[in-house]
Amino acid sequence: MTTDNAAATLRQRIRRGAHTGHTSGFAPGHVQCNLMILPADWAGEFMGFCQKNPKPCPLLATSEPGSPHLPELGEDLDIRTDVPAYRVFENGVAVAEPTDLKDYWRDDLVVFALGCSFSFEEALLADGLDIRNISEGCNVPMYRTNIPCASSGRFKGDMVVSMRPFKAADAIRAVQICTRFPSVHGAPVHLGDPAQIGIADIYRPDFGDPVTIKPGEMPVFWACGVTPQVVVEQSRPPFCITHSPGNMLVSDLLNSQLAVL
Amino acid sequence: MTTDNAAATLRQRIRRGAHTGHTSGFAPGHVQCNLMILPADWAGEFMGFCQKNPKPCPLLATSEPGSPHLPELGEDLDIRTDVPAYRVFENGVAVAEPTDLKDYWRDDLVVFALGCSFSFEEALLADGLDIRNISEGCNVPMYRTNIPCASSGRFKGDMVVSMRPFKAADAIRAVQICTRFPSVHGAPVHLGDPAQIGIADIYRPDFGDPVTIKPGEMPVFWACGVTPQVVVEQSRPPFCITHSPGNMLVSDLLNSQLAVL
Repeated sequence: MTTDNAAATLRQRIRRGAHTGHTSGFAPGHVQCNLMILPADWAGEFMGFCQKNPKPCPLLATSEPGSPHLPELGEDLDIRTDVPAYRVFENGVAVAEPTDLKDYWRDDLVVFALGCSFSFEEALLADGLDIRNISEGCNVPMYRTNIPCASSGRFKGDMVVSMRPFKAADAIRAVQICTRFPSVHGAPVHLGDPAQIGIADIYRPDFGDPVTIKPGEMPVFWACGVTPQVVVEQSRPPFCITHSPGNMLVSDLLNSQLAVL
Repeated sequence: MTTDNAAATLRQRIRRGAHTGHTSGFAPGHVQCNLMILPADWAGEFMGFCQKNPKPCPLLATSEPGSPHLPELGEDLDIRTDVPAYRVFENGVAVAEPTDLKDYWRDDLVVFALGCSFSFEEALLADGLDIRNISEGCNVPMYRTNIPCASSGRFKGDMVVSMRPFKAADAIRAVQICTRFPSVHGAPVHLGDPAQIGIADIYRPDFGDPVTIKPGEMPVFWACGVTPQVVVEQSRPPFCITHSPGNMLVSDLLNSQLAVL
């Protein structure tokens, strides 16, 4: 891990305003992260939530309270400046979407960096699978489900899932590939009938965009990094910060380093 | 691998006629094998068929021409006596079902021992999954499909699959578990809609017995060790011998030794 890599270069560009907006497709091969920042008096319960729900909330790194640094993810990384856009919440309501946290940083904040589907999508693409949200150039469809997460203190709620359609043989291959990557949501949590997990209409996602499901394909569902955002919004901490959707924290880690097999 | 184990003891009992009939559930933990015995002038093409179709024909061991021994599977193993019942074919037609091969053995015969679903069923059971053909006390349902095998010389044909129904989450778990065992058919080849692989009626298997598919379950299909028997019967070699269904060759190998991960 050095600062002389595409991820560090991209963070530096973001820091000085030379890169704005989505990070998808930038610094390929590098792990991008979902971001959650909470006051210390909420952080322990959130860490417990991640520990109990590793599929939707795969924790890659946390900071010391008040520290904006995550050295495991990048030596020079400064969470206050290195994400293109953030969302600031007060009592569960979004109040601002700044491009840095200089006006919002507090000495009691704890940073959580969580794995993101970009990593396993890269592995699926490398195996020749068609990722529909990529081939159709849109956001992945995401759905609220009736799959309960394990509660931790004030954090509770149901899992949000993302969906990618595949033929059965490719769905089986996707299970095999994603099993190698437990820290970026791991294997799918469901496949086939959407109603079994409480999804009423597959063409009306709760977040993101609908994608085409071709004849002979089945929907395949992964635990989604939007889960912790929904859970945190419901629990209404007085203050919290997330990344803005699609504007991820780009780390020095390589996706291949996350493979357990 | 010693002769002092449950598998060797069972083979000795079979050899002296003290155990007859099915081997399922005997010598638990030990690898049981499908058996194919062909004259040497057909053996090369059959080995090529196995090499090209490892999912239906996972080759565990072969003999030298004329040798009834497979030392990799058991030091004392004698293929002429150690299987409870055999089927002898002439020109693709079953002509006898002897309990030993003393009257049939020839100096040009080559033995092929192939992996069997008993091994992965044991792994699925150990993980708490319900194997329907076991809980309903019947033979697993098997179907001819439209999935072509790769041809090798005179051997060609479509894959036969076995089917076990699971809820989606258990189907995903079954893919993960069976992926560890490529030498006993490995991961499923299909799941969901049977028509996609040419199965007209899931309740009318071509071999074995139908099993109940409960609401919320999907059929999950594995490449099946009946495939080589069907292919060999179609290619009509002048002479060949297989095990009688359910009467497997019990080896000293442990199922756990087949795990690649």
